[in-house]
Amino acid sequence: MTRVVVTVMPREGVLDPQGQAVQGALGHLGFDGVDHVRVGKRIELTVHGPEPEAEARRMCEELLANPLIEDFTVTVEGG
Amino acid sequence: MTRVVVTVMPREGVLDPQGQAVQGALGHLGFDGVDHVRVGKRIELTVHGPEPEAEARRMCEELLANPLIEDFTVTVEGG
Repeated sequence: MTRVVVTVMPREGVLDPQGQAVQGALGHLGFDGVDHVRVGKRIELTVHGPEPEAEARRMCEELLANPLIEDFTVTVEGG
Repeated sequence: MTRVVVTVMPREGVLDPQGQAVQGALGHLGFDGVDHVRVGKRIELTVHGPEPEAEARRMCEELLANPLIEDFTVTVEGG
């Protein structure tokens, strides 16, 4: 079994309303020196089987990421 | 200016309904060898100022994470 970390972020150039909301809220709290905020997902999962990284990539393509608007990375922990 | 990555994950032992939903959906798609799925956030931001890591930690404490149910990490890119 292998622990895998998937990150899914909005693609460069795609509007990120959640990032904009966080940036605005930080400004209201007095954190002025903050910009280029992007918000995405981090998914940790245990994959059983011989090819955990390839399997996780297939999961991203089929479910975890929307390729039109999101990029993903797959990292095998300790690998 | 410094690029900072914040990760916010559900605490160990806290129910993670989003993780459970993803795990169930993966099972329905035929990805059977998957468990312990946890879903959290990855936030990338640019921080201006002399102490970007400490500033990002304050942002987590005040806005980005809920300390009752979430743990966060702050990583300075290239640092």
